[in-house]
Amino acid sequence: MMSVRSFLLTILLPASVYAQNGSLVQYVKPIIGTAKMGHTFPGATVPFGAVQLSPDTDTIPYAVDGKYNGDVYKYCAGYQYNDPTIVGFSHTHFSGTGHSDLGDFLIMPTTGELQMNPGTADRPQDGYRSAFSHDNEIAEPNYYKVKLNDHNILAELTTSTRVGFHQYTFPKSSQSHIILDLMAGIYNYEDKNVWTVVRVVNDTLVTGYRQTNGWARTRTAYFAMSFSKPFKEYGTQNNDKPQVYKGFWRKFDQNKNFPDIAGRNLRMHFDFNTEADEQIKIKFALSPVSMQNAVANMREEIPDWNFERVKEEGQNAWEKELQKIAINVPTKEDRINFYTAMYHAALMPTVYMDTNGEYKGLDQEIHKSAGFTNYTSFSLWDTFRAFHPYLNLINPKRNADMVASMMAHYDQSVLHMLPVWSHYANDNWCMSGYHSVSVVADAIIKGIYKGDAMAALNACVQTANARNYEGIGEYIDKGYISAEESGTSVSNTLEYAYDDWCIAQLAKKLGQTAIYQDFIKRSDNWRNVYDKSIGFMRPRLNDGSFKKDFDVLKTDGQGFIEGNTWNFSLYVPHNPEGMMENMGGKKRLSRYLDSLFTMHLPDEFFAHTEDITREGIIGNYVHGNEPSHHVAYLYNITGEPWKTQEKVRMILKHQYHNGADGLGGNDDCGQMSAWYIFSSLGFYPVAPASDEYWLGSPAVNEAKISVGNGKEFVIKAVNQSEKNVFVKKVLLNGKEVKNNRIKHADLIGGGELVFYMSAKKKI
Amino acid sequence: MMSVRSFLLTILLPASVYAQNGSLVQYVKPIIGTAKMGHTFPGATVPFGAVQLSPDTDTIPYAVDGKYNGDVYKYCAGYQYNDPTIVGFSHTHFSGTGHSDLGDFLIMPTTGELQMNPGTADRPQDGYRSAFSHDNEIAEPNYYKVKLNDHNILAELTTSTRVGFHQYTFPKSSQSHIILDLMAGIYNYEDKNVWTVVRVVNDTLVTGYRQTNGWARTRTAYFAMSFSKPFKEYGTQNNDKPQVYKGFWRKFDQNKNFPDIAGRNLRMHFDFNTEADEQIKIKFALSPVSMQNAVANMREEIPDWNFERVKEEGQNAWEKELQKIAINVPTKEDRINFYTAMYHAALMPTVYMDTNGEYKGLDQEIHKSAGFTNYTSFSLWDTFRAFHPYLNLINPKRNADMVASMMAHYDQSVLHMLPVWSHYANDNWCMSGYHSVSVVADAIIKGIYKGDAMAALNACVQTANARNYEGIGEYIDKGYISAEESGTSVSNTLEYAYDDWCIAQLAKKLGQTAIYQDFIKRSDNWRNVYDKSIGFMRPRLNDGSFKKDFDVLKTDGQGFIEGNTWNFSLYVPHNPEGMMENMGGKKRLSRYLDSLFTMHLPDEFFAHTEDITREGIIGNYVHGNEPSHHVAYLYNITGEPWKTQEKVRMILKHQYHNGADGLGGNDDCGQMSAWYIFSSLGFYPVAPASDEYWLGSPAVNEAKISVGNGKEFVIKAVNQSEKNVFVKKVLLNGKEVKNNRIKHADLIGGGELVFYMSAKKKI
Repeated sequence: MMSVRSFLLTILLPASVYAQNGSLVQYVKPIIGTAKMGHTFPGATVPFGAVQLSPDTDTIPYAVDGKYNGDVYKYCAGYQYNDPTIVGFSHTHFSGTGHSDLGDFLIMPTTGELQMNPGTADRPQDGYRSAFSHDNEIAEPNYYKVKLNDHNILAELTTSTRVGFHQYTFPKSSQSHIILDLMAGIYNYEDKNVWTVVRVVNDTLVTGYRQTNGWARTRTAYFAMSFSKPFKEYGTQNNDKPQVYKGFWRKFDQNKNFPDIAGRNLRMHFDFNTEADEQIKIKFALSPVSMQNAVANMREEIPDWNFERVKEEGQNAWEKELQKIAINVPTKEDRINFYTAMYHAALMPTVYMDTNGEYKGLDQEIHKSAGFTNYTSFSLWDTFRAFHPYLNLINPKRNADMVASMMAHYDQSVLHMLPVWSHYANDNWCMSGYHSVSVVADAIIKGIYKGDAMAALNACVQTANARNYEGIGEYIDKGYISAEESGTSVSNTLEYAYDDWCIAQLAKKLGQTAIYQDFIKRSDNWRNVYDKSIGFMRPRLNDGSFKKDFDVLKTDGQGFIEGNTWNFSLYVPHNPEGMMENMGGKKRLSRYLDSLFTMHLPDEFFAHTEDITREGIIGNYVHGNEPSHHVAYLYNITGEPWKTQEKVRMILKHQYHNGADGLGGNDDCGQMSAWYIFSSLGFYPVAPASDEYWLGSPAVNEAKISVGNGKEFVIKAVNQSEKNVFVKKVLLNGKEVKNNRIKHADLIGGGELVFYMSAKKKI
Repeated sequence: MMSVRSFLLTILLPASVYAQNGSLVQYVKPIIGTAKMGHTFPGATVPFGAVQLSPDTDTIPYAVDGKYNGDVYKYCAGYQYNDPTIVGFSHTHFSGTGHSDLGDFLIMPTTGELQMNPGTADRPQDGYRSAFSHDNEIAEPNYYKVKLNDHNILAELTTSTRVGFHQYTFPKSSQSHIILDLMAGIYNYEDKNVWTVVRVVNDTLVTGYRQTNGWARTRTAYFAMSFSKPFKEYGTQNNDKPQVYKGFWRKFDQNKNFPDIAGRNLRMHFDFNTEADEQIKIKFALSPVSMQNAVANMREEIPDWNFERVKEEGQNAWEKELQKIAINVPTKEDRINFYTAMYHAALMPTVYMDTNGEYKGLDQEIHKSAGFTNYTSFSLWDTFRAFHPYLNLINPKRNADMVASMMAHYDQSVLHMLPVWSHYANDNWCMSGYHSVSVVADAIIKGIYKGDAMAALNACVQTANARNYEGIGEYIDKGYISAEESGTSVSNTLEYAYDDWCIAQLAKKLGQTAIYQDFIKRSDNWRNVYDKSIGFMRPRLNDGSFKKDFDVLKTDGQGFIEGNTWNFSLYVPHNPEGMMENMGGKKRLSRYLDSLFTMHLPDEFFAHTEDITREGIIGNYVHGNEPSHHVAYLYNITGEPWKTQEKVRMILKHQYHNGADGLGGNDDCGQMSAWYIFSSLGFYPVAPASDEYWLGSPAVNEAKISVGNGKEFVIKAVNQSEKNVFVKKVLLNGKEVKNNRIKHADLIGGGELVFYMSAKKKI
């Protein structure tokens, strides 16, 4: 499937022993997913760090002449591997999203005549951007290095949680510059830049903030920028439309050496003389709250100018994160895939809180965290599936804090809703469902979240009863959303039904019978959009009849969000047996799944859906997008677990590899990677908020998962190989597992799961 | 001079006894100055209150088709007496300025079909505005009442320091509305509205903020709005340009009953059913810091819905303020003029701090006040002259806090400058000079400001050495500003020279000899722009020669700000004797002054200067603008104090009266009024930062000034009358005053100043 591999990172030698301690960082290739639609970024960051300091290869407008600019989609993470130039290095990036924002505070070092405009990729010499080559580029966890050819500057980046650390090695020049582009950004809507303030405090310290109206409607990012060397001059390019009243600001020359700067569209330059190989370093701290907090974050996290130490501390943090799972895998490529997946599954959500505990809430007020780390950027439609369950397994404290952050969001919400897709003190309500209830319920049911469980249940119930939100009112009244009400009426109904089941599970755990009864009933609503006459989920009209014109293959305009009914008809994760029964039993489901994975579809069937790409498709099965992530595991209930095993291994093999284009679709804030990790280990959380995992086929020979309190859960796959993908027998702590399921409680106590593998299916 | 008196507020009866205790508020007519160019507002406020809740009769754009809209000048305070309609009631207004801003949060109650646009003055029925009549209008301190004819609604307004309190009496209607116009504002520049957030917390509480880029470049006003009765519905009109990406916000109907609102150009409506004569009350609290602080301000200041009590408390505060000076005057008109002047001299600067002590600093950070009340809106070019000296006399604690506020501004200034014209955490640098040094020096020299005097001196010196600011560098280097450097080079040089003298006086007081020497030398720089050959101050070129083309009458393009050289040549308040000597001695100055007050000028000489109006002119003397405010007193040094006495009385009589058009020019944040108060009492601070007042001719029969610590300074004008304007003799505590000057120390100890008045000049 992967016809284009733009470069070969991997030496395909066997690597079938555990990696040495302290050496896992080397297996992380941040470049994976930076080509095509992976939408990952190659730059520097620490685990869940607030700063993602990374090169942007273009910063193009969202719309041109009032029309959507399709090319912008490529730049969700700012970087496209095949681009020839780097515009600069900005401090905030999503990882793997399908819509975007951020790209704040783009910095570019230059030499020669001052150029204040970015220029274009085909004529970089007309702007401050620079050509670069992958030959001169290194991307490691918390370290990025590149030669900027046009300026003869070596750029190196590292970070702490809240501070980006730049190290630029200049040539000898009396015209060395640092550009700070405060107009640049990712997904630059018209008028996205709402307001910008900059204060040049002295000749080495600059503070300010940038307020945007983008995917996050009301967002302010504060900064403090410190130079290792005083600049000799500085200036501002103000690109705002001139006003009739210019005011008494004219009393100053505001373009040059004027320290009190504000406007909508600003760029700045700081000028230096440099000797050959002289380094200019910049510490760039962020804060969600204020400039003074940004200064404090900088002083607390990086009090000196030791770039190497900061790089090492961040890489040590990564090493610690990666060592939570030790693996013995057949090839180095497997190891790289696995640890890069772990890396990608530890980038988001990001810390959104200053070192003093303050953060900006959804209510646009400053809050002080009550004993938890506040996180932001919850892509919940993606991450409730495997990512948050994965954190519950190896990062329970972080996931508990994420639930606490979601509860704070709820407490601050004037809509009284948990987050849908929230970032930077905003909810953008992207995608469908109210899947935070899945994350909340899963974390409480598994004993991870220790906060007020009744308050959490109440938040879930309130969210599920937000009648004005995307058809919820009708869904409550009629048991389904009508096609008249919503263009994604079927997928919404299906997703609400699963979410309702999560609430029911939480209510049951808390002994709230009435809530349980209400929501367990609602969780059956998937049945109301199933059309038995055609054997698919189907849009239903207000009058109860099914929509006439209906295409089971098309992804757009059929009542589903980013998927067709072939994929979405399988979306009853909380009651797959019921779904199967409805479809006509095991054989019918088996045939359905077989068709899904093998049927031939012309390209145009997915051409209209941004988040589904050719690379992410196997037959009609769409791995590159989330709704089908549990589907390969469904053969476990058709009596053909060997098909699950085969399919999972096929997906692991074909949808993930070591190239820059090594992801078959958006990584989606770690969800694609979490799928990889779980499936490689041989199990998957088909229905979060249950305590069950369904078994697949481990791709590791052996793995040790640190499950907390010093305990390890060991997975062994005896005789595992590329051919031996079928499971003969599974023993959990010596006892045979007969139903292809294990429980979370079995894992977190520590223990051993032994798969006996074979080249022959066990039928 | 006052040919147009649009109405008669005054009954011209003798009122030659002290008013009764507790009854001074009745003599304040806030309507004075609301016609023509007084630029005062008639609405409700408490002394120096953060809220000025007042009707706006139009809210017109600053520019039309890219050109300045001259009409906007009329609306500096939002209200023009001769306008037929009221658009609504907004919460922030400057008093008497010549440029403007504010007008935040315009509220209008309406009935009938919902109208979301303001409409026009000639067709009010097309919008939410309403016709009104002065017959149905009452304006008192902290109380404003008007009938809104188009809606049959009685509107009443009162305030506490930080909360506006609206009381609307509706007719019976199922279509009663409260409009909250978040686009409306005073001096509406294009794109002035930067961002607005509104949160409908519940059916009686709304919070939010409004961020503007107007005269204050970066300004945010936060609010909390509470209704006495739940609204039944609400909605938003969003007038923003539609974006290509509409986002998932479309999941909600954002126009109706949607509580999470943000955008650039928003209007809101809240809908009610009302019975006949049903009152809907609104408390509207402001904060410079946050919505939650606004809520706290509201709860602290007005915990209930008792409109009458709040009105009474505010009027009691005014009574207390007014009682600081008791007067016995010949007529009720005099009394109204006097107490209205005291009223106008207690409106600005305004409290800019929450009840918890937090405020937004010039550095855009949140600060907590260290033991002082933070004030904002310092129109220092105006107010350093008589207004701040006036506060030093009767409101020393407030003036000390104002100096503390200016010092906080300095500490937060990235330019390391004291305020020039500052408002709402910004400096707009309007007008010329660095006159905060006069206020600071005056307050320290008079023992008012008890803070760190050395830090204050340092702030003054730093400000005076801000080389990049309006010619200061050249001024320091050459002793004058060249015509090439600045269009107001002469007035700047003159004003800097006076300011430098203030710094010298402060340095002397603090024993800082080197600083004293430096600045006393600089204070002589006025000599460098005096052209002896023509006997006027005159622009000088870079090469030292005087500018060739020069018109001594014209106000524009001649090197002066808002004045001609006839007026400005007298601006050496710190060394009038030196000035007189330079001009050729007493006789020459006397003739000069005589000419000034009597010469005939065609109208067009002042037509180009916004802040100078026909009404404010006596001959070529311009009382309506500030640079000449000390001029009438200069006859004291020509040996003709009787001319000072005559001129002062003439100005008192002709430049101030009880009509809506009763001010001869902008009140300028209390400066015009402070001139009236001082001059009525018989003395004036010709050179603040000296401890001297110059004597004139008291228009009171008697006055008692509370000068603190229970002490009174009593002024008696024996035989004073409209004819007996000449001073025969003056006794200070029984001792004759021979030089027509008294000292501040003489006043604040308490005592008695007796003027013996006569109809005959004492030559």
